[in-house]
Amino acid sequence: MAASGDKLPKMQYRFLGRSGLEVSAISLGGWVTYGDAVGDEEIAFECMKAAYDAGINFFDCAEGYAEGKSEIVMGKAIRKYGWKRNDLVISTKIYWGQAYGDNPVNNGGLSRKHIIEGVEGSLKRLQLDYVDLIYCHRPDRHTPIEETVRAMNYIINTGKAFYWGTSEWNSEEIAMAWACAERLNLIGPVMEQPEYSMLARDRVEREYALLYENYGLGLTIFSPLKQGILTGKYNDGIPEDSRIAKAADGFTTTQRESYGNEQWKKTLAQVKQLKPVADKLGTDQATLALAWVLKNPRVSSAITGASKVEQITKSVKALDLIPKLNDEVMTEIDEILGNKPAAPYRRL
Amino acid sequence: MAASGDKLPKMQYRFLGRSGLEVSAISLGGWVTYGDAVGDEEIAFECMKAAYDAGINFFDCAEGYAEGKSEIVMGKAIRKYGWKRNDLVISTKIYWGQAYGDNPVNNGGLSRKHIIEGVEGSLKRLQLDYVDLIYCHRPDRHTPIEETVRAMNYIINTGKAFYWGTSEWNSEEIAMAWACAERLNLIGPVMEQPEYSMLARDRVEREYALLYENYGLGLTIFSPLKQGILTGKYNDGIPEDSRIAKAADGFTTTQRESYGNEQWKKTLAQVKQLKPVADKLGTDQATLALAWVLKNPRVSSAITGASKVEQITKSVKALDLIPKLNDEVMTEIDEILGNKPAAPYRRL
Amino acid sequence: MAASGDKLPKMQYRFLGRSGLEVSAISLGGWVTYGDAVGDEEIAFECMKAAYDAGINFFDCAEGYAEGKSEIVMGKAIRKYGWKRNDLVISTKIYWGQAYGDNPVNNGGLSRKHIIEGVEGSLKRLQLDYVDLIYCHRPDRHTPIEETVRAMNYIINTGKAFYWGTSEWNSEEIAMAWACAERLNLIGPVMEQPEYSMLARDRVEREYALLYENYGLGLTIFSPLKQGILTGKYNDGIPEDSRIAKAADGFTTTQRESYGNEQWKKTLAQVKQLKPVADKLGTDQATLALAWVLKNPRVSSAITGASKVEQITKSVKALDLIPKLNDEVMTEIDEILGNKPAAPYRRL
Amino acid sequence: MAASGDKLPKMQYRFLGRSGLEVSAISLGGWVTYGDAVGDEEIAFECMKAAYDAGINFFDCAEGYAEGKSEIVMGKAIRKYGWKRNDLVISTKIYWGQAYGDNPVNNGGLSRKHIIEGVEGSLKRLQLDYVDLIYCHRPDRHTPIEETVRAMNYIINTGKAFYWGTSEWNSEEIAMAWACAERLNLIGPVMEQPEYSMLARDRVEREYALLYENYGLGLTIFSPLKQGILTGKYNDGIPEDSRIAKAADGFTTTQRESYGNEQWKKTLAQVKQLKPVADKLGTDQATLALAWVLKNPRVSSAITGASKVEQITKSVKALDLIPKLNDEVMTEIDEILGNKPAAPYRRL
Repeated sequence: MAASGDKLPKMQYRFLGRSGLEVSAISLGGWVTYGDAVGDEEIAFECMKAAYDAGINFFDCAEGYAEGKSEIVMGKAIRKYGWKRNDLVISTKIYWGQAYGDNPVNNGGLSRKHIIEGVEGSLKRLQLDYVDLIYCHRPDRHTPIEETVRAMNYIINTGKAFYWGTSEWNSEEIAMAWACAERLNLIGPVMEQPEYSMLARDRVEREYALLYENYGLGLTIFSPLKQGILTGKYNDGIPEDSRIAKAADGFTTTQRESYGNEQWKKTLAQVKQLKPVADKLGTDQATLALAWVLKNPRVSSAITGASKVEQITKSVKALDLIPKLNDEVMTEIDEILGNKPAAPYRRL
Repeated sequence: MAASGDKLPKMQYRFLGRSGLEVSAISLGGWVTYGDAVGDEEIAFECMKAAYDAGINFFDCAEGYAEGKSEIVMGKAIRKYGWKRNDLVISTKIYWGQAYGDNPVNNGGLSRKHIIEGVEGSLKRLQLDYVDLIYCHRPDRHTPIEETVRAMNYIINTGKAFYWGTSEWNSEEIAMAWACAERLNLIGPVMEQPEYSMLARDRVEREYALLYENYGLGLTIFSPLKQGILTGKYNDGIPEDSRIAKAADGFTTTQRESYGNEQWKKTLAQVKQLKPVADKLGTDQATLALAWVLKNPRVSSAITGASKVEQITKSVKALDLIPKLNDEVMTEIDEILGNKPAAPYRRL
Repeated sequence: MAASGDKLPKMQYRFLGRSGLEVSAISLGGWVTYGDAVGDEEIAFECMKAAYDAGINFFDCAEGYAEGKSEIVMGKAIRKYGWKRNDLVISTKIYWGQAYGDNPVNNGGLSRKHIIEGVEGSLKRLQLDYVDLIYCHRPDRHTPIEETVRAMNYIINTGKAFYWGTSEWNSEEIAMAWACAERLNLIGPVMEQPEYSMLARDRVEREYALLYENYGLGLTIFSPLKQGILTGKYNDGIPEDSRIAKAADGFTTTQRESYGNEQWKKTLAQVKQLKPVADKLGTDQATLALAWVLKNPRVSSAITGASKVEQITKSVKALDLIPKLNDEVMTEIDEILGNKPAAPYRRL
Repeated sequence: MAASGDKLPKMQYRFLGRSGLEVSAISLGGWVTYGDAVGDEEIAFECMKAAYDAGINFFDCAEGYAEGKSEIVMGKAIRKYGWKRNDLVISTKIYWGQAYGDNPVNNGGLSRKHIIEGVEGSLKRLQLDYVDLIYCHRPDRHTPIEETVRAMNYIINTGKAFYWGTSEWNSEEIAMAWACAERLNLIGPVMEQPEYSMLARDRVEREYALLYENYGLGLTIFSPLKQGILTGKYNDGIPEDSRIAKAADGFTTTQRESYGNEQWKKTLAQVKQLKPVADKLGTDQATLALAWVLKNPRVSSAITGASKVEQITKSVKALDLIPKLNDEVMTEIDEILGNKPAAPYRRL
């Protein structure tokens, strides 16, 4: 799995939190990439091939992406290229099973029934015997945490996944899952998949602080470019046919609500100020934004999307920028953003 | 799974106690419906189809119903209509395996042997890999609770059921099962299947009170019409060919003992008094009785029987009546029945 | 499974200690009956058929009986007669696997390796997916109790047996197995298979006393006729071709050592005195001896051997004698034997 | 499995630490023997056959030996000779899976992913359903001990190994694994595979002292001849084509560093002094060195290599020497070596 590109930097591998699993610092997500949004399986295959050749070993999916079609395409690619299973880290997420069914009742959430049935469905679509990582795609406040913790351990004990984790759970929910797992001598959640970028820092940098220390939580973050905003492509206004204008599925509620309002305008102004920083470093804003999240050692992997092979090449090049983000640069960026979270309170 | 009837109310789904599983508030039971009592598989198929189309997702069965034939018919219906397994909540119950064997020794009760062999038999008859719910059909005072709790967990751990529960256990027995499960870090019983109706309130409304609070116990109640008594069809005397006159299998010991005596006459007189209440609400007594049990939020699902498609339609319409059962109506009913249990004792 | 004989008493079923499993009070063992000692499979088949028809549901075997041939014959009989698996209680025992192998190393004892490999071998010979009961045929003082307790739980958790127990373990060894099981939240040994007869009382009547109370230990006793001595057939001297003269395999070390010495002569004299007791009850000494062990409620089942169908019929008839063994008769027998154990010491 | 050689001593079997498993005191390892180093499968087959015929039941392997080819050859030999699985103790080790893959990421170490995938790979190469022993080939300081302990228990619980252990872990690491196993009620590591010889004593004789007592640790030691140094073949200088001159793979870092330096020369001088001791006992230095490690009762098995059948015969003959190593001889050897560790500190 050596990088095939002429000038691509060597891939970095990081431990997933305190676990013994190594994931590529940059990973490929099937969020809007595969299935509906792209439509063309061939492009998805090419992107996965380019990612694999660049040393990316972690491919992220979910039952709810593109009505299950992301999993199908990912599974086909793995077969097509004959990659060895042990060289890959494959994830999927359970929560929005109704996306591919016709019935919301018991086909979503984190009940024992849906976790077990959902994982079976995902494995069939992926044509795999197991995934490496299985995520709870969201917190399910209707299901007791013990039911979910036990069901996730069932998935691990029956050999269908190696590690389980969460996505967009708050720190209290993660801590409660650990408390439950510890009380029952079960395996706790090893990783979280939160949103993280220059424009969304609080959860990763403040809220989760004690979880890293106490439970060794690892992060596989998504939206490092904040749906493209951080590439600077909206610096001079929003193109009519852009994904952001169409308020695509990937948008969080907060984003949709804020789109176009005062905060939105203020954000775009800040993003514009990052351009000179990128220029000074001899890079572009997208690369800067991606390198910036990778600079945080809590980030095990930054999940990127791609609808063209070139996007992957570009992402991987961010690895070269990380060492250049010295204290001076980081401080300059903090000052532009003005959103650096206070350190978590701890009595002396 | 949309309602196909022209005027049927939208099905309600309720969580099964504190679990993450959703069951339709009205469910279909195979107690006297399938197998011997009906005889004609076709009618059973039609009833299940009508139920499914009305949004009913929970189908209740038992190894002891109609010598195992209820399970066979239910299994055939699922195959016949090609319903998705994940859209269904299927239950069965273990205790009366001798019903379909020739030998009572070790083919009944809640020993590890019968639980494991019984579940295997049920799954074969149902043509399923797993049921959602597995019940202990009665308490077995000859088997230590630890043996039963461990065997039920074995069933769950081997993927043959998602949740286990009890039927007609008293509160002490359920609490002892929980104490045992908690001591051994095992899964406790999530649901009970008691009798519950206007004429049988004590257990659900008083005896189990602390179990809801402490263990999140959910209820799937049976006999909401008290074997038809609450429909008012005996208001003017008992038809000679009615099931009640023949003291059908479904009768509890208490019912058989009381049939025709003073208490019986008093009960019929009370039931007669409910007619004006139903009239006032623009409904009939059967619908009133069913809506009344569903008004109790502890009831996750009311199991109904059907030997004609029309009975299902009628049952589902009770959903529309629930919001009309306001405090005034409920008080009036309590006064007629005179059997409202005192609140469970709790020192301040 | 009704008794087919014209005058046979109805079989009694007893719970196996505090478990929920019911075993016939009289059971059939494959000790010297099947395999080598009989030689003729047909006789073994006939005996098993007669036992089954008499209501015997418990058939006892061991990997070490007749070099594994007992299990093979028992397995063939079950297939031949098409008996339902759930109607049978089948046991086997692990310890002397070297009996059927050519290598004593790791093919005997109670290591994890031999327990798992031994059970696999037994199930293959029996042509069964599981046995009901799996015994540790002897204590293995070279293997830590935790290893054995864990391996037995592995056998149960993988569905290869329902209950585990011991044979000829002393009370301390059984208590240590329970202590280990309780510490690890595992399943403890439910039953013991000791020798028990009028001539061997101490272990069952004194040594195990606290185990019944504390752990609900059940007993499936062997040698109720003390290798035929208690039938009275040696009252007038030992026939040259008798099994006892040949010091058959079944003999315990103690028996072999004592054969012919002073104690032996004293024992035969006592046995002779039991004849008038049998006469008075209108029975023979063998029936008396068998009924006497069954009178003890701690005995869940008395394992008998048979090399002729008539022996089974005779054994089952002992059930009719049990109610006739009143206090007066029991006291008379105790006085003849002079070996009634003192009650276990317990401070007030 | 009787010794076929004319004058070979009877094989000794020793319990593997406090477990119930018996391993031959002398065992055959696939370290440099099979796969690349030998090249010729036929020689490997003959060596295994000779070992088996000499009563050796324990064959040691690792995923990392000869890029997985050792396992392949060992598996072929077992099939070729039709040995019974239960007569063999087969081990393998997980850690250096990258040896047979093209990708170091997640194909080495002791993560849950690699342990499970690694064992699957080993079993396929060995053509076996399970190994008896599974070792962690080295400590993995990047993976939390709990992840490794849980994964090893998963391997045992899924029937893929009977016992797990470590190789070249320090005492603290082993103690931490036991602490973790005891906290979680899981199975701890039963055996260690350290280097042990007259020239490498400290770990076995001092460092592990409390582990034997507290956890019943058993040892399967390797390099009893210190890569041939203790045979005395370098007494008069190092042959140019010898393995030691080529600094073969088996060499530890320490050996490579010390090769040829002052300490090295001092060691060779000591080894030379052992010759008269061997002469006095009527044996050679290799036999003396092997018997010397077997004299230590903590050694369950000494793993030897062989590239000729004669080497096995020679090794087995060391068993005859053990009783001749009396206190006088042992003291003489200690004085020559000057490396006897002080007893582990223990306050009175």
